[in-house]
Amino acid sequence: MGEFDLIRTHFWRGAAARPDGTGVLLGNGDDAALLAPAPGMALAVSTDMLVAGRHFLPDVDPEALGHKALAVNLSDLAAMGARPLACTLALALPQPDAAWLQGLARGLLALADAHGCALIGGDTTAGPLNLCLTVVGEVAPAQALRRDAARVGDDIWVSGTPGVARLGLALLRGEQALQGAGAEAARQQLLRPAPRVALGLALRGVAHAAADVSDGLLADLGHILVASGVAAELDVEALLQRAAANDALHALPLATRLGYVLAGGDDYELVFTAAPAHRAAVQAAAAQASTPVTRIGRVVAGVPAGHVLEPGASRVRLCDAEGQPYALPPGVALGGFDHFATMAP
Amino acid sequence: MGEFDLIRTHFWRGAAARPDGTGVLLGNGDDAALLAPAPGMALAVSTDMLVAGRHFLPDVDPEALGHKALAVNLSDLAAMGARPLACTLALALPQPDAAWLQGLARGLLALADAHGCALIGGDTTAGPLNLCLTVVGEVAPAQALRRDAARVGDDIWVSGTPGVARLGLALLRGEQALQGAGAEAARQQLLRPAPRVALGLALRGVAHAAADVSDGLLADLGHILVASGVAAELDVEALLQRAAANDALHALPLATRLGYVLAGGDDYELVFTAAPAHRAAVQAAAAQASTPVTRIGRVVAGVPAGHVLEPGASRVRLCDAEGQPYALPPGVALGGFDHFATMAP
Repeated sequence: MGEFDLIRTHFWRGAAARPDGTGVLLGNGDDAALLAPAPGMALAVSTDMLVAGRHFLPDVDPEALGHKALAVNLSDLAAMGARPLACTLALALPQPDAAWLQGLARGLLALADAHGCALIGGDTTAGPLNLCLTVVGEVAPAQALRRDAARVGDDIWVSGTPGVARLGLALLRGEQALQGAGAEAARQQLLRPAPRVALGLALRGVAHAAADVSDGLLADLGHILVASGVAAELDVEALLQRAAANDALHALPLATRLGYVLAGGDDYELVFTAAPAHRAAVQAAAAQASTPVTRIGRVVAGVPAGHVLEPGASRVRLCDAEGQPYALPPGVALGGFDHFATMAP
Repeated sequence: MGEFDLIRTHFWRGAAARPDGTGVLLGNGDDAALLAPAPGMALAVSTDMLVAGRHFLPDVDPEALGHKALAVNLSDLAAMGARPLACTLALALPQPDAAWLQGLARGLLALADAHGCALIGGDTTAGPLNLCLTVVGEVAPAQALRRDAARVGDDIWVSGTPGVARLGLALLRGEQALQGAGAEAARQQLLRPAPRVALGLALRGVAHAAADVSDGLLADLGHILVASGVAAELDVEALLQRAAANDALHALPLATRLGYVLAGGDDYELVFTAAPAHRAAVQAAAAQASTPVTRIGRVVAGVPAGHVLEPGASRVRLCDAEGQPYALPPGVALGGFDHFATMAP
């Protein structure tokens, strides 16, 4: 079975333009797909590559992999406040495997359907297992949740429970041995993260800056701080209180837990800033999106944008609930998630 | 050096919106880039993945690789008649290598600059060498050169000299040993193909259907024929006459030469159809784009669209210059280029 048959069989489906002639004008099957944003909207474009042994274990269930590959890309759209429109999938795999591809397609297309995201193109080739997705969403440019839009005095918020996915990885690797609802939730968070698209959309006009938490909370908050030329006071006690929502995470030694929460990576939550006057609006957006959010600090004056000292942590001061410096216990691993640091055991 | 530093150092550059507020509104450095097409234009999106040992040899010059990785993607835009606007690059590489990345960036960005194509995003990860590019171009939807637009009676045209890149591969592999201008041109065509963007733009409103020749002339013409529900008579003598433009290609035994010309792959030329009444307009477009074109056949009635028999060749009847059946000599390799068939020696 050649590459065209593989793709056609498992992934191609029709795509129809909207009644007003915008959206996906031409889907899969030509040299390029054609997209037209609705009037006043720009297209948000993001790309992510997932490599076996690095972002997932080679023996992962293909359906979970299909879900996650799209989820991590949709998470980038969520962090812009963009509504998913379309995606492309480029796939290298060692040999054609119909059952594996069927599982991958099932996981990817189910999530794509849930978000109205059409698969509009792709490429398949033989090679070491690798998935590269590009997603396209729609957002009014003035409403996009940019990284450079945080303002001094803003509250800092995060969705969900940072650290849970890192616990899921630890469980998968056998670094931790916990059971029960929290442990199962952690595995699910790692393998099948739910991109916070609804929250991103609800935060348009409410939040100032946003980023998705893929490399760890400190690192991704750091991207906002660097781009906005500001610094942050981060309320570690609020984060630990949120972490208690997962009983398995809460059961970990404090130093381990802090490492997971602050620098775990793979969370695919949103970290965002909003004016204190918008606290009720943030909570309303979170309720509308059925997504828990926690206020975890505030934006303070810092080194101006463009003056990059070190990525991330250097612009963050860890505090307790009263705003006093929080002294980390010994042994907290805060190394930002780096894709050149191996993720496999 | 972490992944952010790698990308920032070698690939990030500013991007500015056009005076009318369209184009690249936000480039690299956020969760997603923001693009807005000019009024009346749609965005054409295409993605291609290149794997070491499959699409290029692992020891290829990184500058040539950077050029080719973008060129094969721009070729898809050319085949839609779209003007390049932006691209993303996702890159897996075994280890960070500043000199190698610098070469890759130089080759890629030089071609991007030549086509006004901004690098708007990317991803870098450790892994077996793999480049995945997504390109975005602009085209008025009604002017896009779609694969399903060929009409019975159309002439069939091809740009450049199909088969030359396949000769280049044979020279690189040591399957052929030729020297001189034609052999050098063949190596260049393989390593540094020039995407036919100017020709694609000039053919808007002139050609009906178009595809780029990446998998071999028969295979890619076949995609047009299947999508349009038509068949073709292909003038093999016209193709051989064109092949004589390269002295090294012309020096090959007939059976080898025919295999290269009809099914060689990696040409990145355009195959397109246009009404006979537009012959002068096609020649004018070719002159405007400084790109040679050759009329190589005509579209005839065939199996309707949707009735896929076999990809490609089954819809093509090979003819001589008088339209009589052309009998291939024994030993012509016409197997369509398949990315699951290895390309490495």
